[in-house]
Amino acid sequence: MKHFRQELWFEIPGRRGFVNITSQLQHCVDQSGIQNGLLLCNAMHITASVFINDDESGLLHDYEEWLERLAPHAPISQYRHNQTGEDNGDAHLKRQVMGREAVVAITDGHLDFGPWEQVFYGEFDGGRRKRALVKIIGE
Amino acid sequence: MKHFRQELWFEIPGRRGFVNITSQLQHCVDQSGIQNGLLLCNAMHITASVFINDDESGLLHDYEEWLERLAPHAPISQYRHNQTGEDNGDAHLKRQVMGREAVVAITDGHLDFGPWEQVFYGEFDGGRRKRALVKIIGE
Amino acid sequence: MKHFRQELWFEIPGRRGFVNITSQLQHCVDQSGIQNGLLLCNAMHITASVFINDDESGLLHDYEEWLERLAPHAPISQYRHNQTGEDNGDAHLKRQVMGREAVVAITDGHLDFGPWEQVFYGEFDGGRRKRALVKIIGE
Repeated sequence: MKHFRQELWFEIPGRRGFVNITSQLQHCVDQSGIQNGLLLCNAMHITASVFINDDESGLLHDYEEWLERLAPHAPISQYRHNQTGEDNGDAHLKRQVMGREAVVAITDGHLDFGPWEQVFYGEFDGGRRKRALVKIIGE
Repeated sequence: MKHFRQELWFEIPGRRGFVNITSQLQHCVDQSGIQNGLLLCNAMHITASVFINDDESGLLHDYEEWLERLAPHAPISQYRHNQTGEDNGDAHLKRQVMGREAVVAITDGHLDFGPWEQVFYGEFDGGRRKRALVKIIGE
Repeated sequence: MKHFRQELWFEIPGRRGFVNITSQLQHCVDQSGIQNGLLLCNAMHITASVFINDDESGLLHDYEEWLERLAPHAPISQYRHNQTGEDNGDAHLKRQVMGREAVVAITDGHLDFGPWEQVFYGEFDGGRRKRALVKIIGE
């Protein structure tokens, strides 16, 4: 069994944003030399997500609006977590809706995807350097 | 390390529906000959889910109603994604609540489940042929 | 390839609660002798979650309030599932928001986490003994 590990770094300027990381993940698979196995990609922070959906700007806008409706940022006093001095209570909730991680099959050296699957890093509390982890096992 | 890959195909007649795929997954495990490992099953489409819950018709009805409340289908103009000519903006949101994938342990050649765990393909934009992927690694 | 399996048992006195299981998972990794691989931890029950977030009491309170707003427990008659004689329809919905499972990378014999990642068992229908499964594969 082979294994491979890499960190991907991000610095989203605003509070929230989405970055398509699909080609970075395929590059990890290439570097790993693994032909068949599983790739795990997870946010290493608890106010960010890794998820798979469509790279269509209207949809990413819809996610932004919908998550803000399900777990609004303001007033920040609505979250007890923010009594610690943070203002990111909403980000911890939004991340649960979108998920922490994606697990992707690797077949014949490629990410084994349907036609529209793209992997995103979703930031809900940006403005600083944060990471996602890529771990691949297989042979 | 052994590995196994199979696609499961679905064609849900209406817009939304749930299909219990647990026995199909166990059949994949049988075919793979893998005794201990991990099984990944994911929707290959971004308007569908694979998730694990109870096979009880009242509950599946509750999911349907609840998801429609969290991310209503109509009016379709509420989603910017639908300006592309699609009408499935809601389906991309519903799928995030229910998730893309399930990862299941395999122990002694069986899906290692609690007493009520059943795996479902959840369709949110049906009426055409769509797929889920099964990938198993182990030995 | 090595593999390891263990069940973790819980009995949450009230209906809902969160238990930090991170150190129990690291103990499983230690017992397994696996240096590099993947750890799956999933609720074996369909009214409970395993998820990763911050161990901060205000945040756990926020999750509790938010989930109750997204999928209220009462009136229990609002869920068709409860016509079976159950009163846990809401718990099946809450669990979907928080997720069934976490997949964690193992690197050099340790859970490969960012600085604040902690793993929780989330109970939404307590008052009885329930389980989570830990399965590790790697070498």
